[in-house]
Amino acid sequence: MDILVQENTLRTFVEQVFETLQVSPENAKLCADNLIVADLRGIHSHGVARLKRYVDGIQTGLMFPQNQPTIERETPSTANVNGNACLGQIVGNFSTKLAIQKAKNTGVGIITAHNSNHYGIAGYYTMQILQENMIGLSMTNSAPLVVPTFGKDMMLGTNPISMAAPTKNKIPFVLDMATSVVPRGKLEVYSRQEKPLPAGWAVDETGCSSSDATHILRNMAETIGGGILPLGGEGELFSGHKGYGLALLVEILTGVLSGGATSNQVYGIKNAPPDVSHIFIALKIENFIDLPTFQTKLDDLIERLQNSQKAQNQDHIYIHGEKEHNLTLQYKQQGIPISDKVYTILKKIAQDLQIQIPF
Amino acid sequence: MDILVQENTLRTFVEQVFETLQVSPENAKLCADNLIVADLRGIHSHGVARLKRYVDGIQTGLMFPQNQPTIERETPSTANVNGNACLGQIVGNFSTKLAIQKAKNTGVGIITAHNSNHYGIAGYYTMQILQENMIGLSMTNSAPLVVPTFGKDMMLGTNPISMAAPTKNKIPFVLDMATSVVPRGKLEVYSRQEKPLPAGWAVDETGCSSSDATHILRNMAETIGGGILPLGGEGELFSGHKGYGLALLVEILTGVLSGGATSNQVYGIKNAPPDVSHIFIALKIENFIDLPTFQTKLDDLIERLQNSQKAQNQDHIYIHGEKEHNLTLQYKQQGIPISDKVYTILKKIAQDLQIQIPF
Repeated sequence: MDILVQENTLRTFVEQVFETLQVSPENAKLCADNLIVADLRGIHSHGVARLKRYVDGIQTGLMFPQNQPTIERETPSTANVNGNACLGQIVGNFSTKLAIQKAKNTGVGIITAHNSNHYGIAGYYTMQILQENMIGLSMTNSAPLVVPTFGKDMMLGTNPISMAAPTKNKIPFVLDMATSVVPRGKLEVYSRQEKPLPAGWAVDETGCSSSDATHILRNMAETIGGGILPLGGEGELFSGHKGYGLALLVEILTGVLSGGATSNQVYGIKNAPPDVSHIFIALKIENFIDLPTFQTKLDDLIERLQNSQKAQNQDHIYIHGEKEHNLTLQYKQQGIPISDKVYTILKKIAQDLQIQIPF
Repeated sequence: MDILVQENTLRTFVEQVFETLQVSPENAKLCADNLIVADLRGIHSHGVARLKRYVDGIQTGLMFPQNQPTIERETPSTANVNGNACLGQIVGNFSTKLAIQKAKNTGVGIITAHNSNHYGIAGYYTMQILQENMIGLSMTNSAPLVVPTFGKDMMLGTNPISMAAPTKNKIPFVLDMATSVVPRGKLEVYSRQEKPLPAGWAVDETGCSSSDATHILRNMAETIGGGILPLGGEGELFSGHKGYGLALLVEILTGVLSGGATSNQVYGIKNAPPDVSHIFIALKIENFIDLPTFQTKLDDLIERLQNSQKAQNQDHIYIHGEKEHNLTLQYKQQGIPISDKVYTILKKIAQDLQIQIPF
């Protein structure tokens, strides 16, 4: 059974956890906000369920919360940032602000960052750019979980792509998608429920699609062979090579372009800080057309999609960001659902850090 | 049976066709090159097989080959181009050159274009940017053939995304992919062979996946309901909503941002020039890291992917652009394969224009 926790109660607790770990109050607020926004949008895999990972990261010396990102190379429209192994959220926030500032000055801001940690949901940063009525893009590489087409080694991250664009009256467009067919969390759900995986989600040590989620997850944990398939699935019949290509596009614009590691080396050195890379792009719309024209045109496109005919047994065509926007409204009112499992984890964190859990 | 035609013979013929239609010699060369490069890369759907479309377009007054693109709005790093209904290849070439020039000056060039026509393969433009040792990106919207997730009306184009990035010793990375699961041409092949379509390629008038290619193609031609599915297939089980999201990302960065039409209105007015929109991005690598470092890192990533373990019955992991690069070498030597059907079309064009076909 889930319990419902009010946003502010949860936020205050998470901030306190970070502050107890010597994160500055300002950065603690930022890191907490990143997790809370993920929960509010229903992306619970990237919400407070992941707090333990940051606690462990800081305590074991993989994340240095007192470090600050530094700029290694800079032009009026671009920069390459060294994250200096601080929290990914701090790197992400620093880089996003820089991208926005550059876009305000020159119309375009493109910032790469390396030597960073997991930065939470990619959409967190594109939605910051959206607040400025600009188009925001962000991508990140990540731990290797995805096999290339015709391969069976986990060589690529789930490498998400996010883009946000401002509307006038409609809910803003916020795409935030892994380039894999599913996240690992989906395999875990099927494993717990002992349900057969749909063909085309993941492969085993033969490199062929398998329905045995538990077996595949064990293989992945022990890197015996097999992993998640790229968007489009196995082989080329359903264009799995396109998902694989998008994952590579993300690798090149993050790990390669920033001079960082690529996904299969991101966590390459045991007990050393990982080397995650990101990219952030802010684009001023007025460079191209007037902002109100853009907003009206996007509203109109959304309207036409929503009014187009539905498939059998369907009554709604969604726009990306719509479900998440509506969940946010709901959770802000009723509270954020916290599962038993996550509650247990949070209680343990509170206990270990000797702080009170306020729910 | 295919015949094999030497690249230069084919090129000269296509140039002559365009010149006969009052395209300037310079632009005729350009348009011919665009089609020949597609054939050389094995993308025959976008090669000389499509020449008839341009001939008809010019003859019926949908494409104005003597018009020149004009710049509507400009900053040091960006521009919005009006294609003035000239050939898409002319708009594409003009915009790509502008993107490169701006990237040389400021590190970044981002050009949108509207009021254009079909511009051929997206990779043609990113490979031009690649020649400058920059990262190239291009996207275009197109005729509506793709249904949104849970819908059944063709609201979106196959909206391709291309990215090219320079290597040192490896074949350059050139991704050029439609955001639909397959192109319409694939349905046509299955229809001719009377083979059942794989579930998840296309839907019929119920909005549900169907295996009847002939029926679906008829529905699409008459816009009765149904069309091609986005990458990821039907519904959300295999993440069709992600392919749908990518198609929307392309719509927003092309039709919306340029002030042009979005796919379902691109060919909206019968007997009037279409209003296709594109985007072109050139990114100077030295903004971020040194070019040799980038190239070596990308070579290394490719090497690791190629050396990773293969799935059962597979002996090669491909990198995007590799197959096309190798085909180009082969076709440059042996000649470009022209099918009987395409040969008949080309002969008819030659006859109508009263020019000799030299093969």
